[in-house]
Amino acid sequence: MKAAVFMGPGKMEVHEVEKPQIEKPTDALIKIVRACVCGSDLWWYRGISKRDTNVTVGHEAIGVVEEVGSEVTDIKPGDFVVAPFTHGCGHCAACLAGFDGDCLNPVSGTKGGYQAEYLRYTNANWGLVKIPGQPKDYSDAQLNSLLTLSDVMATGYHAAATAEVKKGDTVVVMGDGAVGLCGVIASKLRGAKRIIAMSRHEDRQKLALEFGATDIVPERGDEAVKHVMELTGTGADAVLECVGMEQSVDTAVKVGRPGAVVGRVGIPQKADMNTNNLFFRNIGLRGGIAAVTTYDKEILLDAVLAGKINPGKVFTKRFDLDHIEDAYEAMDKRTAIKSLLVISEG
Amino acid sequence: MKAAVFMGPGKMEVHEVEKPQIEKPTDALIKIVRACVCGSDLWWYRGISKRDTNVTVGHEAIGVVEEVGSEVTDIKPGDFVVAPFTHGCGHCAACLAGFDGDCLNPVSGTKGGYQAEYLRYTNANWGLVKIPGQPKDYSDAQLNSLLTLSDVMATGYHAAATAEVKKGDTVVVMGDGAVGLCGVIASKLRGAKRIIAMSRHEDRQKLALEFGATDIVPERGDEAVKHVMELTGTGADAVLECVGMEQSVDTAVKVGRPGAVVGRVGIPQKADMNTNNLFFRNIGLRGGIAAVTTYDKEILLDAVLAGKINPGKVFTKRFDLDHIEDAYEAMDKRTAIKSLLVISEG
Repeated sequence: MKAAVFMGPGKMEVHEVEKPQIEKPTDALIKIVRACVCGSDLWWYRGISKRDTNVTVGHEAIGVVEEVGSEVTDIKPGDFVVAPFTHGCGHCAACLAGFDGDCLNPVSGTKGGYQAEYLRYTNANWGLVKIPGQPKDYSDAQLNSLLTLSDVMATGYHAAATAEVKKGDTVVVMGDGAVGLCGVIASKLRGAKRIIAMSRHEDRQKLALEFGATDIVPERGDEAVKHVMELTGTGADAVLECVGMEQSVDTAVKVGRPGAVVGRVGIPQKADMNTNNLFFRNIGLRGGIAAVTTYDKEILLDAVLAGKINPGKVFTKRFDLDHIEDAYEAMDKRTAIKSLLVISEG
Repeated sequence: MKAAVFMGPGKMEVHEVEKPQIEKPTDALIKIVRACVCGSDLWWYRGISKRDTNVTVGHEAIGVVEEVGSEVTDIKPGDFVVAPFTHGCGHCAACLAGFDGDCLNPVSGTKGGYQAEYLRYTNANWGLVKIPGQPKDYSDAQLNSLLTLSDVMATGYHAAATAEVKKGDTVVVMGDGAVGLCGVIASKLRGAKRIIAMSRHEDRQKLALEFGATDIVPERGDEAVKHVMELTGTGADAVLECVGMEQSVDTAVKVGRPGAVVGRVGIPQKADMNTNNLFFRNIGLRGGIAAVTTYDKEILLDAVLAGKINPGKVFTKRFDLDHIEDAYEAMDKRTAIKSLLVISEG
């Protein structure tokens, strides 16, 4: 089968590799319909973080189940599914508490490989999210929105959930990448009244407003803090940190009112931080890896199916697997907000 | 009037000072009935943190209002009140959100001075908490419990509230000082099922169990983490950090299950911390200065009046103002959990 392979910083290729097979009784073999490139893929594509070369990559997909292991009883061959980047078992303390991104029964050997024709997905019984019907029952736009449920929409939702966004809140969203834009959608879905998107790129500002943002703040650092304070008087009720850079986290802490919670999903680029800024203003810091399956099953799948949210609009360019290098480059050069990979009809 | 005066590390004296007067229209003049010494007073008493000398001190008291400023309409002369260490205005964004410890209309010139015969308390209209009846209507034990509503009980409650302790939770309480012990009370009040108190002093272990702790862990650091994991399997649902030392905060983060929140009220002795330990296990960090008036009015005063909680038991030694030095020494030498100061009949 064809699969995207990372050959080194700035170099993606499509190789013919062996088709995966069921290895564990908890596995499912999935024929991929659509996959995509994640902002976090750019860390190793750009050479900023290390990654082994000559490996298959990608961690977002939807597809149709071809075969399941003996312990997979809730998912059957022929099922159309979201394949989250997480692999929750559904019964450990973390999954039961709604944090399946930190499942205490982690799986090995299935990291990545979603940018391919087939995927072996383990902890399939609970981790996969069944979509009603078949791919052909959905429009192009709907398929794109369903694809976002494998990571980006759920990750944006995690930022809003851990920031404890509630009805009537004023929210600041740090980051105008696909995750930040999904954070805007999530804030609106949870009832936020005012959503301030921190964005300096015109295409992203436009999409943020379409998704429900009420204000745009293009500044960064202290200027951004000043602008938010002018808009809100006393700071936001909740802050979504969807970047992970030191300056962005610092700004996130400063734009909240006393008692606000910063929900962060941007992978932290610096571990150490001065937490006195949190303590003396009662600012909370929460977040981490999204609980994809939980959010999909609880709220996001229904919201997409009902047309209440349209996160698939973050895909502004589409490619096939043979043009994987172009798909990465478009995101690297910011000519696409997020790159879609159309793999098969299912 | 008599007042406790800080003369330098290890040296407290009682001086005759001028009786305070109403200075602002938002002030109330209070005749103190009982006051006490706080664990945080030991930071400057021990010379660990700096503080001006020759100043009146103390920030916890109950008393009877003698006079009020022209803008104080909800509190009248003769009212028996809790005088919180906080001074919430009741109408700013922080107070309205339930974080009056971070009131955005801060007052100046009234910091400390509660360990005295009279106190000028500003932002009195909302900040003070009215107690039904008069001091003579209450038993000795009840007066002690009412006194804890000025700080220690509300601070312990803030740890539990920001750790988001809910019914059925397994909770770890770091710190067996008076605040930690009140954290045990607060956890039980919020419905925790299992409360693990980290304590290595027999008198405090005994009180923790009396207040509702179900388990005692005397170890510290990695040994403590191991012990909690043996008890819980996967970590606690919520963690109360009532110490503030680097090791204690570090342990607090490690004993939570994925998604747990650490509610901290121990004043941080080190600002920088590695927050990757939070992110990659979805551990939340919240807390800060307690919302004393909010908690007193919402839940704590009623709980004390109904006899549901008896936080006054943290006072294990009593003194009069003339023996202020002994009161501090008893806490410094750990011969008292918390030192009570009996000032007047009201």
